[in-house]
Amino acid sequence: MSPAIQALIDQLEKLPGVGPKTAERFAYYLLKRPVDELDTLLSTLSGIRNQIKRCRVCQNVGLSDPCEICSDRHRQHGLICVVAEPQDVLAIEKTNEFSGLYHVLNGTINAPEGITPNHLTVKELWQRIKSLQTQKLSVEIILGLNANIEGETTTLYLIRLLKPSGIKITRLARGLPQGADLQYADEITLINALKGRREA
Amino acid sequence: MSPAIQALIDQLEKLPGVGPKTAERFAYYLLKRPVDELDTLLSTLSGIRNQIKRCRVCQNVGLSDPCEICSDRHRQHGLICVVAEPQDVLAIEKTNEFSGLYHVLNGTINAPEGITPNHLTVKELWQRIKSLQTQKLSVEIILGLNANIEGETTTLYLIRLLKPSGIKITRLARGLPQGADLQYADEITLINALKGRREA
Repeated sequence: MSPAIQALIDQLEKLPGVGPKTAERFAYYLLKRPVDELDTLLSTLSGIRNQIKRCRVCQNVGLSDPCEICSDRHRQHGLICVVAEPQDVLAIEKTNEFSGLYHVLNGTINAPEGITPNHLTVKELWQRIKSLQTQKLSVEIILGLNANIEGETTTLYLIRLLKPSGIKITRLARGLPQGADLQYADEITLINALKGRREA
Repeated sequence: MSPAIQALIDQLEKLPGVGPKTAERFAYYLLKRPVDELDTLLSTLSGIRNQIKRCRVCQNVGLSDPCEICSDRHRQHGLICVVAEPQDVLAIEKTNEFSGLYHVLNGTINAPEGITPNHLTVKELWQRIKSLQTQKLSVEIILGLNANIEGETTTLYLIRLLKPSGIKITRLARGLPQGADLQYADEITLINALKGRREA
């Protein structure tokens, strides 16, 4: 195989969740496309490459700093949902139900993989909260981390870190997902659904 | 979300087997990479974009015409393995056991999706065989198509088309895959393994 095609396969293999077979499939897909389609991809990619910025407020990656969300005056600047990844911001934005801002940690605490709070944007979150407090804004931090071990570890760490500052800290509800069948729900989900029950 | 990022997601979603969620994950992966890594991807892609060629002999996509395989004098030019896709060529090349050439059909016959022999490189295969016959080369066509309905339809079509020209036509063996457990093998595989049994 030509080294150029192999180089393309190697680079596509770096995409998350992509193994050598999928990378090959992607490479040959691209080779078989009309050239103008490749040109569109190239110009989109290079356009983005020249504009990538990290928002100094929420630490999300995007094309402006501060990002569109953080510079929106109609949003509640004291309400901050802390998430692990940029995709989590997208997921919550799609609900159209959240009017606050975000804080992207860029990962979660994962001791076995050596990811400590220092690798995350925890310091930036802390400074952000301090700055909101000096502006006398009422602050609520929603911990919007994944419902798995890493998410839980990170949530507990942040609660311990932030609680002493006296701000309101909440976390996302746990319970049955939409469409769930009781008989197939796992025990922890059921326990959380019972514990979090509300008056009807 | 910025329209540029949305455009990137839309284009990544065109990759085979990639849905909107995976495309989002790819896009944010790319946004979070160091800029020089994106530059490498960009230059590899644009280098390839300027060199893509279809081999006039085997119809494979690649960076030269005729391709490296077809212009290799040490290979048997009368032995042609007919495959559906460029990736199939890669798979067979990796065995290091095949010394012939290939013919890439660029698909398989699929009536429900409207893919007829006219959409494939059948005409080119036919002309290639004619030309080998006028060169008085002994010709063997190995039908190396997938072991599914479309592959089988295409195989039967090609047998009917090529048989009258009197050339040798073979097909890949069917049987138990390496590492298979008899008790978990499906019936058709077992039938093929029995039919194709060889003296030990």
